[in-house]
Amino acid sequence: MAVAVSTEFDFAAYLESARGQVELALEAALGPERPESLREAMRYSLLGGGKRLRPILCLAACELAGGEVALALPTAVALEMIHTMSLIHDDLPAMDNDDLRRGRPTNHKVYGEAQAILAGDALLTRAFEMVALRSPGVPAERLLQVVGELSLSAGAPGLVGGQVVDLESEGKDVDLDTLEYIHLHKTGALLQACVLTGAMIAGASEPLLQGLRTYSRGIGLAFQIIDDILDLTASSEVLGKTAGKDLTADKTTYPKLLGLEESRQRAEALVAEAKAALQPWQANAQPLLALADYITSRDR
Amino acid sequence: MAVAVSTEFDFAAYLESARGQVELALEAALGPERPESLREAMRYSLLGGGKRLRPILCLAACELAGGEVALALPTAVALEMIHTMSLIHDDLPAMDNDDLRRGRPTNHKVYGEAQAILAGDALLTRAFEMVALRSPGVPAERLLQVVGELSLSAGAPGLVGGQVVDLESEGKDVDLDTLEYIHLHKTGALLQACVLTGAMIAGASEPLLQGLRTYSRGIGLAFQIIDDILDLTASSEVLGKTAGKDLTADKTTYPKLLGLEESRQRAEALVAEAKAALQPWQANAQPLLALADYITSRDR
Repeated sequence: MAVAVSTEFDFAAYLESARGQVELALEAALGPERPESLREAMRYSLLGGGKRLRPILCLAACELAGGEVALALPTAVALEMIHTMSLIHDDLPAMDNDDLRRGRPTNHKVYGEAQAILAGDALLTRAFEMVALRSPGVPAERLLQVVGELSLSAGAPGLVGGQVVDLESEGKDVDLDTLEYIHLHKTGALLQACVLTGAMIAGASEPLLQGLRTYSRGIGLAFQIIDDILDLTASSEVLGKTAGKDLTADKTTYPKLLGLEESRQRAEALVAEAKAALQPWQANAQPLLALADYITSRDR
Repeated sequence: MAVAVSTEFDFAAYLESARGQVELALEAALGPERPESLREAMRYSLLGGGKRLRPILCLAACELAGGEVALALPTAVALEMIHTMSLIHDDLPAMDNDDLRRGRPTNHKVYGEAQAILAGDALLTRAFEMVALRSPGVPAERLLQVVGELSLSAGAPGLVGGQVVDLESEGKDVDLDTLEYIHLHKTGALLQACVLTGAMIAGASEPLLQGLRTYSRGIGLAFQIIDDILDLTASSEVLGKTAGKDLTADKTTYPKLLGLEESRQRAEALVAEAKAALQPWQANAQPLLALADYITSRDR
């Protein structure tokens, strides 16, 4: 029997199926947390919608590297937990002081500041538990590599470092290098961890990991440029968070430094670079290639 | 040549030597953190003194289990990082709102709230990096066990959970069961992780891990009872933190529920229980036995 090779990749169906898997895994992950109030605060933000881009990137990278996707699910959940904790902490009054996130009041608006800080801390530690204690079937060496990658991407060398520079840059004139530093750390590091950890779980080769580093650097920066553009051009209703905030805060953005049109071109060039880096693995790279395009075409 | 078996254990010398090792390892651990301001905030609290009881417990447990102490040093550092992050976050205005810690202004008083929250986050992730990427010579299976234990003890099932119940109990009448729940989670869980992870690194047997669980439960509760007693009886100057705070905050404490004398007796009974649990390993347990006594005899 001949196997039909389809050149059409149904990205919408892929995305829906992956999202469904992720939502189920997220829902199942926060079972036994006590006390109840902490569990509620953790669930509120973790299960409060979102594109689930990070876990899906992790699953897609695992698949690209020839791994069984189910084995990467706990790590995918861990990545969303880390992302969620960074949103909760970034929204705090002492930081970005945001009232709205994913169309709903931010965590501290609902549960108070203390609970929000602690819910973030609990999600961060829970992420490491997912990998270390809830990832059956993956060799310990690989899981330890994943723990290492998660800790680097979430901490001072990654998103925390990016957030510090971002806060310190508020109200200052920031050049393109600093803007790139902020985004490569604040958003890029965790996006990179998504594809690297997914591939690590599958036991990926070093050349593939290198290709994924280039890929994630490209989509990470493109993602942020699009975020800046959307903040200027979309409404709060569509975004599910306060729009026009960068302008109000006099924040340096790509559109501000480069203009809207050049920012768009740059994002497209970065996505092209990202996709080119996966050339040697193209046969299995359809989800990651489509995700790269999705990032520049999204409207929220 | 006959080996002289000394029945005298020089605890003061042991403590000084272990502390010296820990201080050196802590100092070396925070090398390359960027940005500079984040690194300073992390160093300020991590290297700001303290008894280093947690890392020393970890090293002592590793030794008791027949392991090479140097192999447990990165985990010992990780434990102090987790402890430090919990102090930084607990001191925040939204939580205990403390101005003084270890005789110096608290982290947010020096670096601001945003930096303090982020320094805590960075220390927490850095702890997992210490274990996953900076623990050469320990098998991956054991390190993964350590990561799991750290995540449980630091998160919702451990110190974060304890802190939530503690905050929720403020201004309320709390019974002995709730008080014990708070302490077993807020302080006890991490103390337990100290001895368990040290022993895990040495590949300890399950009976020894069980003995260490009982030991750490006893010293953990005793430690907290003594803390409550010292808050009543010692001066801020000696404590290096605000004394009498429990009374001012109308906080439920052991002395309040049981009286000073019965609290002291209870702490002593718990320490005796803790020491009894190590009976089968007595030959190598001198540091842990002496540490248990040290906890009830300390004056700050």
